[in-house]
Amino acid sequence: MTDVKFNRLALIGIGLIGSSIARAVRKADLASEIVCSARTADSRRVAMELGIVDVAYETAEEAVKGADLVILCTPVGTYEAIAKEIAPVLQEGAIVSDVGSVKSAVVKAIGPHMPDGVHFIAGHPVAGTEKSGPAAGFAELFINRWCILTPTGDVDADALEKLSAFWSAMGSKVDTMEPEHHDLVLAITSHIPHLIAYNIVGTADDLEDVTQSEVIKYSAGGFRDFTRIAASDPTMWRDVFLHNKDAVLEMLGRFTEDLAQLQRAIRWEDGDTLFKIFSRTRAIRRQIIDAGQETPEPDFGRVHKADDKGGKA
Amino acid sequence: MTDVKFNRLALIGIGLIGSSIARAVRKADLASEIVCSARTADSRRVAMELGIVDVAYETAEEAVKGADLVILCTPVGTYEAIAKEIAPVLQEGAIVSDVGSVKSAVVKAIGPHMPDGVHFIAGHPVAGTEKSGPAAGFAELFINRWCILTPTGDVDADALEKLSAFWSAMGSKVDTMEPEHHDLVLAITSHIPHLIAYNIVGTADDLEDVTQSEVIKYSAGGFRDFTRIAASDPTMWRDVFLHNKDAVLEMLGRFTEDLAQLQRAIRWEDGDTLFKIFSRTRAIRRQIIDAGQETPEPDFGRVHKADDKGGKA
Repeated sequence: MTDVKFNRLALIGIGLIGSSIARAVRKADLASEIVCSARTADSRRVAMELGIVDVAYETAEEAVKGADLVILCTPVGTYEAIAKEIAPVLQEGAIVSDVGSVKSAVVKAIGPHMPDGVHFIAGHPVAGTEKSGPAAGFAELFINRWCILTPTGDVDADALEKLSAFWSAMGSKVDTMEPEHHDLVLAITSHIPHLIAYNIVGTADDLEDVTQSEVIKYSAGGFRDFTRIAASDPTMWRDVFLHNKDAVLEMLGRFTEDLAQLQRAIRWEDGDTLFKIFSRTRAIRRQIIDAGQETPEPDFGRVHKADDKGGKA
Repeated sequence: MTDVKFNRLALIGIGLIGSSIARAVRKADLASEIVCSARTADSRRVAMELGIVDVAYETAEEAVKGADLVILCTPVGTYEAIAKEIAPVLQEGAIVSDVGSVKSAVVKAIGPHMPDGVHFIAGHPVAGTEKSGPAAGFAELFINRWCILTPTGDVDADALEKLSAFWSAMGSKVDTMEPEHHDLVLAITSHIPHLIAYNIVGTADDLEDVTQSEVIKYSAGGFRDFTRIAASDPTMWRDVFLHNKDAVLEMLGRFTEDLAQLQRAIRWEDGDTLFKIFSRTRAIRRQIIDAGQETPEPDFGRVHKADDKGGKA
């Protein structure tokens, strides 16, 4: 069995994902020392107060010194500058990874700057909530969720095995794939869902004939579901769309083409087409539940209680 | 205080909503007798076995005899035929209502057939889950959810007050509005969200370069959220879109216009526009939570547990 314990883990950024890694690593004892860097004094203070890191540095350069595992947990738009900053001080033999939601652009942003003797393996834990910041993380975030690693070139097999074992030890299932394929898969399973969720919330906010108060009151009709992922971190998502342009535009083209078909069916009152399309989807949800990626409880298990005082029904 | 208790409640259809009303009425003792009609023998058998109705009839005509409250709980496409069927046997003074997700078409389908002395008041409880059938209902479904009544013409004030009190007694908050306005509001808060959820699940299912297994494995990136409302009853939703065509097409036009703006911003790598649009939405979710229409818990309160065996993380 691979020894999964690291000496010093450096988390660059300590938001939802970084702080969840810190907690999971602490819980499973996967590193002797956990340090982080965070740009804002507030994040550093919160991370220290929560006791999830041993030291919180202002710069990535300070954090990575002596680290044998470095994970970038900031928005992907920051990666190239961080790669340049840390390259000169990375320890020989260190593994450098990340948690970004796009992978081709990340490989291009980080890869060329990595010195010989450092093992760069891009990664993406497909897990999260709509919350942000160091206080939002929790150790169980990665349990039963997939972590996709996208090793490229002649990556060291031991380093890949150790990084895989590290994610497994935090509860993840680990897959490897080509960065380009990752970006295509995540475009449909994550990026387009976020884009259309952000979009419909914007559309609703702009209406003249329907008041915002009405949108809020009657949101239980379905709209509220979309506001959850549309409450995700705007900087992170801006960077995702800027760095996965081609795959997102390809999938968006298909989505709008299909939507035009539905629009036409509504205009021409073609009930058979509507029924056929609406009947396809239950099977997919069933498979997602069977695969352990979703709760089987109705309404996501939202609480419906007789003594409910609001907010949980 | 209005006496809210009815003598005989007839529920036409005993699916998720009908059976939830039966349970809530029983729990709050809002009717001396609860009967239903259901087209299939299976639904009648389940309803009787669950003990949520006193009698389950095959036809609406039998069920409404002697009823002082009749609620149509079938897909809206069936309403006109049911109205014609029950009209000759409705009891003088009875209140006839419904739970359909569209209201203008319902008023036109039912209203003209109602005899003098019967009080027709269309209604829509904005509540539900993705499950269907008599076993899926529960008494708490309407608690803290809005029920919209759309009285038209010279509706009897006492009948309206009694129907409002009935919904309040089941835990609902009650609003009244014009049917046309209801349809516009629900188009954006419910119908378009369902349409785009159905659509993206279809788009994902049709891909050639991404396998269905990949869509399922990585659905926690956001996609799985959409599969919930896309798992709703296809017949019900076909009828919604066939009967709220104008408002849905209007809102869909706005949605696609806004989506084109996002598409353009991605193509031209306009990060400022993306950030601006993505930053608008947290406030709306916050207001929905404050209004008691959504759980404040991250990830809808989906369970993330260390001992999770899948399906609930």
